[in-house]
Amino acid sequence: MPRIVAILGATGQVGRTMLALLEERAFPCDGVKLLASPSSAGRTLTFRGAEVPVEPVGPGAFDGCEFALFGVKNPIAQQWSGPAREAGATVIDNSSAYRYVDDVPLVVPEVNGALLAARPTLIANPNCSAAPVVLALAALRPLGTLKKLLVSTYQSVSGAGSAALDDLEAGVKAGWGGATPPRLADGRPPFAFNCIPHIDRFEDNGYTREEMKVVWETRKILGLPDLPVTVTAVRVPVRIGHSAAVHAWFDRPVSPDDARAAWAAFPGIEVQDDPAHLRYPLPLDVAGRDPVVVGRARVDLMEPNGLAFFYVSDNLRKGAALNAVQIAEACLAARKHS
Amino acid sequence: MPRIVAILGATGQVGRTMLALLEERAFPCDGVKLLASPSSAGRTLTFRGAEVPVEPVGPGAFDGCEFALFGVKNPIAQQWSGPAREAGATVIDNSSAYRYVDDVPLVVPEVNGALLAARPTLIANPNCSAAPVVLALAALRPLGTLKKLLVSTYQSVSGAGSAALDDLEAGVKAGWGGATPPRLADGRPPFAFNCIPHIDRFEDNGYTREEMKVVWETRKILGLPDLPVTVTAVRVPVRIGHSAAVHAWFDRPVSPDDARAAWAAFPGIEVQDDPAHLRYPLPLDVAGRDPVVVGRARVDLMEPNGLAFFYVSDNLRKGAALNAVQIAEACLAARKHS
Repeated sequence: MPRIVAILGATGQVGRTMLALLEERAFPCDGVKLLASPSSAGRTLTFRGAEVPVEPVGPGAFDGCEFALFGVKNPIAQQWSGPAREAGATVIDNSSAYRYVDDVPLVVPEVNGALLAARPTLIANPNCSAAPVVLALAALRPLGTLKKLLVSTYQSVSGAGSAALDDLEAGVKAGWGGATPPRLADGRPPFAFNCIPHIDRFEDNGYTREEMKVVWETRKILGLPDLPVTVTAVRVPVRIGHSAAVHAWFDRPVSPDDARAAWAAFPGIEVQDDPAHLRYPLPLDVAGRDPVVVGRARVDLMEPNGLAFFYVSDNLRKGAALNAVQIAEACLAARKHS
Repeated sequence: MPRIVAILGATGQVGRTMLALLEERAFPCDGVKLLASPSSAGRTLTFRGAEVPVEPVGPGAFDGCEFALFGVKNPIAQQWSGPAREAGATVIDNSSAYRYVDDVPLVVPEVNGALLAARPTLIANPNCSAAPVVLALAALRPLGTLKKLLVSTYQSVSGAGSAALDDLEAGVKAGWGGATPPRLADGRPPFAFNCIPHIDRFEDNGYTREEMKVVWETRKILGLPDLPVTVTAVRVPVRIGHSAAVHAWFDRPVSPDDARAAWAAFPGIEVQDDPAHLRYPLPLDVAGRDPVVVGRARVDLMEPNGLAFFYVSDNLRKGAALNAVQIAEACLAARKHS
């Protein structure tokens, strides 16, 4: 039977990056099935040199598909995860709909890919800020036990979708030369020349849901359900690439040199940490690239067992599409080995 | 004798803002003397409707001046602080040259303005990120004793000077439509569409001097010489307005409601903290305004005695020129009362 990979939400930013990565990584499949809402269907996208039509998702859409990569919002993911699994597909869902369900694995393959040995047919892909921080912290596990975590993010506008990038572009144009760009059509503050401490909706505890996602997901993926974590999530006028200032406190001192060595040896991480030569993580250098780039490692000044560092990750790649495709690759490897 | 206020560095961003604020606040003076390097001298600037020539700084330049507001870099401040004081002027210096000298007061008037009763003739004006965070924390003193402090900044490009703003503008133009703006002429990364975890030079401990300034200055101004403080300072593509995510840990719980009430009652602070109605601090809303705007107050999830909040401050005002003019005002008040 030919191996077909479906992408639901194929015309969105994450969906298009999923498609590009299946080709770029030579994912072992015989074809793709591109699915989108009826309003986005009808276009074509290129895969391995051929034009592939985007079809409207509907009954029977997942028939014959071995994997279904979901790059859609929660309600759409909830609507189609059942039919896709019933059709025999393994669903890898980039929405947050299933991330906090106990028996759904939430996976960063380099960190907890062992969960895929159980052959789950629904796997949740983590939040775009959670995946990179978890990767950076997992690399440090041999150096000490993580006791507390604080993350302040600098998140790019592409994390808010294609339309938000258009809003950024329009705002930059309106603010060109020093003018204040206007609020967006829905009343939200403009992205251009601004820092917005509001991503996703607010929870009752005063944190945004984006902030709580990082709390919940780092705990679940690292297997530390009681880890004290606190987060501030801020949108900045960057197109692609989520950055974060991270403070991690361990049960013993973790030296910056040891941390850099551990990161350099860990899959999916690149170290850029030579400030004297202007080498540190920068969104403009990371956009369009796979690794989580880590640098600015230094001893936390507050507590000697603390390590401070800064990372940047392409939010459309390790924060979304890349991790989803890596999960599919890890599923295939798990099936071979079992 | 007429009261004359000299501004050294009058053509720079901070100097021009000092001049605007002397007029805006009706500072009780009879005139200003505008001083700059010989290369910037020769222009005129407007004060109270009259054109005032910018004169080259040189011997005798401060004769007859009661105050000398310095908006220049360290070496220039060090060169002219002696002559200005010998000429009888009280020097209020925005550089970092004297901030860490034990017998030079480092002043935020609302916080430690009492130091001006001793009639010092050299007063240091704090760093653009230190002043607002100290103000926000001083307001909370009645609620608990500060035990630990963590600050992650989102600093605007105007903090790097006028030329940097031109670089931002050029970078935005070059990056228009999605291109990657080039590195700056000196090899540094572009400001546009980027987050740069490098402000000022690097110290041996892996922190930038900008980060250490916040450490040293919060301790000195708050009178807590052993306060554990840790900082990450990041440049973001915003024109005016430094933001920061702050986590402050106290000796007891400090509720967000109590914090908001304390801030609202404290001079120089405005509370914007109603997320449900999209009210939180934003650089675009704060640029050109005096108050430090505070919001996003919430209980720290890591430790129950912790309070997390976000602030934005116009770095050219409370972070520089406004605080300097307020110091001069407080000096006058102290002289009247003694």
